[in-house]
Amino acid sequence: MRKPIIFGEILDIGEGHWFKDRKEMMLSSFHRNWGAGIDGNAKEGVAAIVLSGGYEDDEDLGDEIIYTGAGGNDPNTRKQIKDQTWDKGNAGLRLSMDQGLPVRVIRGYSHKSEFSPATGYTYAGLYSVVDSWEENGKSGFKICRFRLEYCGKNKERNLPETLELRYSKREKQRKEGTILRIIRDTKIVRDIKKLYNYECQVCRHTINTRSGRYAEGAHVKPLGNPHDGDDSIDNIICLCPNHHVMFDKGSFSINDNLELIGILEGKLFFHKQHYLNKSNLEYHRKSHGYN
Amino acid sequence: MRKPIIFGEILDIGEGHWFKDRKEMMLSSFHRNWGAGIDGNAKEGVAAIVLSGGYEDDEDLGDEIIYTGAGGNDPNTRKQIKDQTWDKGNAGLRLSMDQGLPVRVIRGYSHKSEFSPATGYTYAGLYSVVDSWEENGKSGFKICRFRLEYCGKNKERNLPETLELRYSKREKQRKEGTILRIIRDTKIVRDIKKLYNYECQVCRHTINTRSGRYAEGAHVKPLGNPHDGDDSIDNIICLCPNHHVMFDKGSFSINDNLELIGILEGKLFFHKQHYLNKSNLEYHRKSHGYN
Repeated sequence: MRKPIIFGEILDIGEGHWFKDRKEMMLSSFHRNWGAGIDGNAKEGVAAIVLSGGYEDDEDLGDEIIYTGAGGNDPNTRKQIKDQTWDKGNAGLRLSMDQGLPVRVIRGYSHKSEFSPATGYTYAGLYSVVDSWEENGKSGFKICRFRLEYCGKNKERNLPETLELRYSKREKQRKEGTILRIIRDTKIVRDIKKLYNYECQVCRHTINTRSGRYAEGAHVKPLGNPHDGDDSIDNIICLCPNHHVMFDKGSFSINDNLELIGILEGKLFFHKQHYLNKSNLEYHRKSHGYN
Repeated sequence: MRKPIIFGEILDIGEGHWFKDRKEMMLSSFHRNWGAGIDGNAKEGVAAIVLSGGYEDDEDLGDEIIYTGAGGNDPNTRKQIKDQTWDKGNAGLRLSMDQGLPVRVIRGYSHKSEFSPATGYTYAGLYSVVDSWEENGKSGFKICRFRLEYCGKNKERNLPETLELRYSKREKQRKEGTILRIIRDTKIVRDIKKLYNYECQVCRHTINTRSGRYAEGAHVKPLGNPHDGDDSIDNIICLCPNHHVMFDKGSFSINDNLELIGILEGKLFFHKQHYLNKSNLEYHRKSHGYN
């Protein structure tokens, strides 16, 4: 019987944990597959990957990894001999990206990088899949590619923001007045989006992507200085990107009875398991002059 | 005759430049107003502000500033004596936010902060307005508030990404698997959005906000590792946030003849002054498996 898939950290297996072999990883469901790099599938997403030097196009920068999907390589020469396809684990990694599921990354002794162990396998930590695309690999065959960024709890390591910063500093000439719009996607945000099946609470539409549905979590009382809103169920609504922008900019707000005010009419669609803190709604209204 | 408003850096007046008095700033159009803190208006946006301790609610953290808008305070006691309103310079700062116009920030001797000069005025650099809202100030009266972040060219100073990082590290408990979606807004992106009057090149809709129209610039060949696309006119299109997400995720792509492919039909609307590099379009198609 196959063990169920587990996402995120497992018990007391911390970053840097060393496994003698893959069997040890299988026992704890840390990575359930003997031969494959990817533990996961198109339906549930991917919970763990092993970097084992199996793909010539991998790049390991530590907290940022360019990872090649599964399939099409010769197990003996490790060269690509045919195109990869967007199914199975490759589709699973896309699902992990869209749903923000964290992926356990494990480095094996045969993986070529300064971070790899001499023998056995080490746990590198939790990563987010932040980008996916396809390209022709060194071999000329199509490969599925992913960019993963560290997203675990170790504050000494690079956060996605640091990696982004590193990129900014790399730019040949920094542009005057570059500004950023930043959307945070936390566990609780993901739960709320799932509750609404990624449908906007204003227009009931969803954004269809090839790997699933997409929506954004909007904080009613904003996170960050100086608002300091909570990342909690009673402060988050599920919106399409267009209505998210309009909400953040105060084009509309929400009354205590969940009626929309401002340039939109109607009522916020609401799931019976969801509730909002009225003081957060009041904060949003007041911040945008609706009172 | 009033001098025209100038946005961004002016000639050789660099960060840290010291002005003896406000008259000196007026001569170079660095800040054109004698008495007011804000140089700008609702129609053109704001080009410069002076921090002079005029508002009891200001907060100066160096590269991040919480700024109080204009109006309603007693020039003698410097206390608020009535509500501020969203017009004139306050509306101008919102316009600067929405259009990503950089604001010159100047600190005066009477401004209370560790960064203020003992006498005269110093130029603190270019800042972006990244947030605006209203609240009741210490006085109980309504005030218009803004968060500004340094956005100039000095690489030693904190970029918005660093400030965001600082915020992440401040969080009491860092959440597992927090991910970010980051939208860069550069000068060339703003020019293209203006060219299309903030209408999406796919659906021709715009996002209306109380301070103006909103759209996003999408890079056809993505910026950043490993794509390394250019921030140039032939690599950027103007989209609403919904279509931006769909484009980045490959729900649709664009043929050389500008027809949409994927889950959308029709043709990309195009301005005659705009053109795309076909190799960028090809890169997007290939990345998302359209070939």
